[in-house]
Amino acid sequence: MHVTAERLEMPLERPFCISRGTQRQARSLLVSVEHDGVTGIGEAAPDSSGFYGETVETMLAALPRCADALGANPWLREEALAAMDRALHHGHGALKSALDMALWDYAGKRLGAPIHRLLGLDPARAPVTSYTIGIDTPQRMSEVAASAGHWSILKLKVGTSADLEALRAVRDATDARLRVDANAAWEPKEALARIEALVPLGVELVEQPVAAYDLAGLRFVRNRSPLPIIADESCVTLADVAQVAGCADGINIKLAKCGGITNALKLIAAARAHSLAVMLGCMVSSSVAISAAAQLCPLVDYADLDGAALLASDPFAGVTFGPGGKLLLPETPGLGVRRRDDE
Amino acid sequence: MHVTAERLEMPLERPFCISRGTQRQARSLLVSVEHDGVTGIGEAAPDSSGFYGETVETMLAALPRCADALGANPWLREEALAAMDRALHHGHGALKSALDMALWDYAGKRLGAPIHRLLGLDPARAPVTSYTIGIDTPQRMSEVAASAGHWSILKLKVGTSADLEALRAVRDATDARLRVDANAAWEPKEALARIEALVPLGVELVEQPVAAYDLAGLRFVRNRSPLPIIADESCVTLADVAQVAGCADGINIKLAKCGGITNALKLIAAARAHSLAVMLGCMVSSSVAISAAAQLCPLVDYADLDGAALLASDPFAGVTFGPGGKLLLPETPGLGVRRRDDE
Repeated sequence: MHVTAERLEMPLERPFCISRGTQRQARSLLVSVEHDGVTGIGEAAPDSSGFYGETVETMLAALPRCADALGANPWLREEALAAMDRALHHGHGALKSALDMALWDYAGKRLGAPIHRLLGLDPARAPVTSYTIGIDTPQRMSEVAASAGHWSILKLKVGTSADLEALRAVRDATDARLRVDANAAWEPKEALARIEALVPLGVELVEQPVAAYDLAGLRFVRNRSPLPIIADESCVTLADVAQVAGCADGINIKLAKCGGITNALKLIAAARAHSLAVMLGCMVSSSVAISAAAQLCPLVDYADLDGAALLASDPFAGVTFGPGGKLLLPETPGLGVRRRDDE
Repeated sequence: MHVTAERLEMPLERPFCISRGTQRQARSLLVSVEHDGVTGIGEAAPDSSGFYGETVETMLAALPRCADALGANPWLREEALAAMDRALHHGHGALKSALDMALWDYAGKRLGAPIHRLLGLDPARAPVTSYTIGIDTPQRMSEVAASAGHWSILKLKVGTSADLEALRAVRDATDARLRVDANAAWEPKEALARIEALVPLGVELVEQPVAAYDLAGLRFVRNRSPLPIIADESCVTLADVAQVAGCADGINIKLAKCGGITNALKLIAAARAHSLAVMLGCMVSSSVAISAAAQLCPLVDYADLDGAALLASDPFAGVTFGPGGKLLLPETPGLGVRRRDDE
C-alpha cells in the first residue's frame, strides 16, 4: 500500500470561538491509500486547540509509523487499527481515523458501494444536523442565528458571562431548535444554575458542562439537570463509554476522537448497551471527514456534522444538506466525496 | 423480497447431553430471502431444550410477521432488525438471526465478497474452535476425548455428581486444552467448590456456573473463582452485556441468542468497552449457522463453533477445520456455504 499525505488549509467563513479559544482557519491532513490502482482517501482533522494532543505537525510526524502499521492488505481494517494502536498506543485519534476512513473508502470503491450500504444502513434515516454558532457578542450571535434560517437546529457555544444574554437574543431571533455546548467551561454547581436558566428558552440538551476529567462532577450535574446532558470531551475511547454511562444521558462520538468509522461503530454499540443517546459530532474540516461520519448517521439520535459548512470554501464535495439541514448521504462508492477542482 | 423456509432435521453422530437434557437430532429452519434473482440464506437453530423460548414450530408460526417486517429493500439490515424487534418484541433470536444472516449472505453475494471481508476482518486471525463432549459416563467421555485427537480444545459439559470423575478420566485420556460448561447447573457455593477441584486438571475456563437469572450468584462465583468465568445463558441481548459486566470475565455470544451477525457485532463492541473476554458459541446446526458465526470469529478470544461437527451428516458445506480445529473461513461470497447435494 502506498500512503501519501497533503496539508489542507481552509479559511473559515467567520472566526469560530469556543470556550477554549478562537479558530480562523481549519488545518487538516488529507491522506491517500493506494493499492492495485484504487485510491481511498481520508481526512485527519484535529481539534484546532490541540486539546486531544494532535496538530497537523504531530500528525505528519506520526504518519510514517501509522502508515507502516497498515500492512500490505487494505481489506484488513480491524488489523490495521490494532496495529496503529500498537504503534501509537495513546491518542492520535484524528490521524488513525483518516487512515481508517481511507481503508473504508478503498473498500467501498472496490465493491462499488457507498459505505452506508456496506453497513446495512438506510440513508433515509439520516437525521438533521445542527449548525454551530461560536461564542460572540449577543448582537452578533443573534444576527448569525437570524441568517441561518435554512438550519432547523442550532448549536450554540457558550462559556462566558454573557451567555444567557446571547442565548436570549438568539431565542428572540429564531424558532430553530437550540442545543448548547459548554465545552467543559463550567464548575458543576455553576453548570446546574446555568442549565436551569436555559429551560425557559426551550433548549433541547447541553453538551459537556464540566471538565473532561471530572466524571463525578458530570454525574452530579446529570443527576440534577432538567435537560439531557451529552458527554463529549469526557468520552473519547470505547472504554470511556462504560465509564461515562451513569454520568451522562448520551455521548458525542467523533471519528477524530475515537479513531475512525470502525471504532465509532463500536462506541455506538457500547452506548446502546447502556441506553445512552448518541450524537455524532465533528471537527471543522472539509467534506471528506464529514462525509465519513455521515455514513454512520442513520444509527444515531443527534447529528452535529456541520464542520464543512463553517468553511469559506470546501475543497471537496460529498454529503449535502436537505431541508432544515437533513443530511443527504452520497450514493457514490466509498465515502462518496470528490475534489471540487475536478469539476 | 421473497422469503421461504424449509425444515432441516439432522441426526446427531451420538446423543448430546447437557445439564438441561439430551438431544438426538438437530432441528432447525433454513430461510431464503430472494430479491432480483439473488438468494441469501440463513439458518434458525434454536436451543434444542427450548430454553430461549423458540422451537421450529414457534419459528414457523412467527416467520410471516418477521418476513413482513423485512420490508422491500434487502440492503437495509439495520432497519430490518429494528422492524423485526417491533414485530416480535421479545426473544425469537434464532429466527431473527436467520433472516439477518440471509440479508448478509445476500449482500455478500451481490458485492462478490465474503462477509468477513465486508467487515474488514483477517481470516488468518480465526481462532481454534473447541469440540464439545456431552455429559456421559466417565468411561464414555474419556473414550470420546481419546478419539477426538484432531481437536486441540475440548469443551466438557458437566452438571452431575459424576463430573469430577469424568473430567479426571478425560484428563487422563488427552492432552487437549479443557474448558468446562455447567449450563447453569450449580448453586453459587457449590459452583465454587466444583471449580476449585478443576484447577489441578488444568481447566482453562468455566462457562455459566449458576442459573441464568442469578447475576448476584454469578458475581459471587466470579469474584472468588480461581478460573475465568464466562456468562452464556445470563447474557443474551445487548443490554445484558452492561448488566453482566462485573459479574463475569467474559461472555458467550451466539447468533441464535442475540439475533444475528448485526447484533453480535454490537455485543462484541459492548463487551470490549467493559474489557470482557468474548467467546463465540453456537447451537447444534448445519454449517449455514456455523459459517455465519465464523465470519466474526477473528474478533473474538474463544470460539465454540463445532455445532455442525456434532451431526451425523451436514447438509451444507462452509467453514472447515484446520489443524487442531482452527476455523478456516470460506473465501466465497456471503456466508460461503453451499448445499452438499449440489455436488
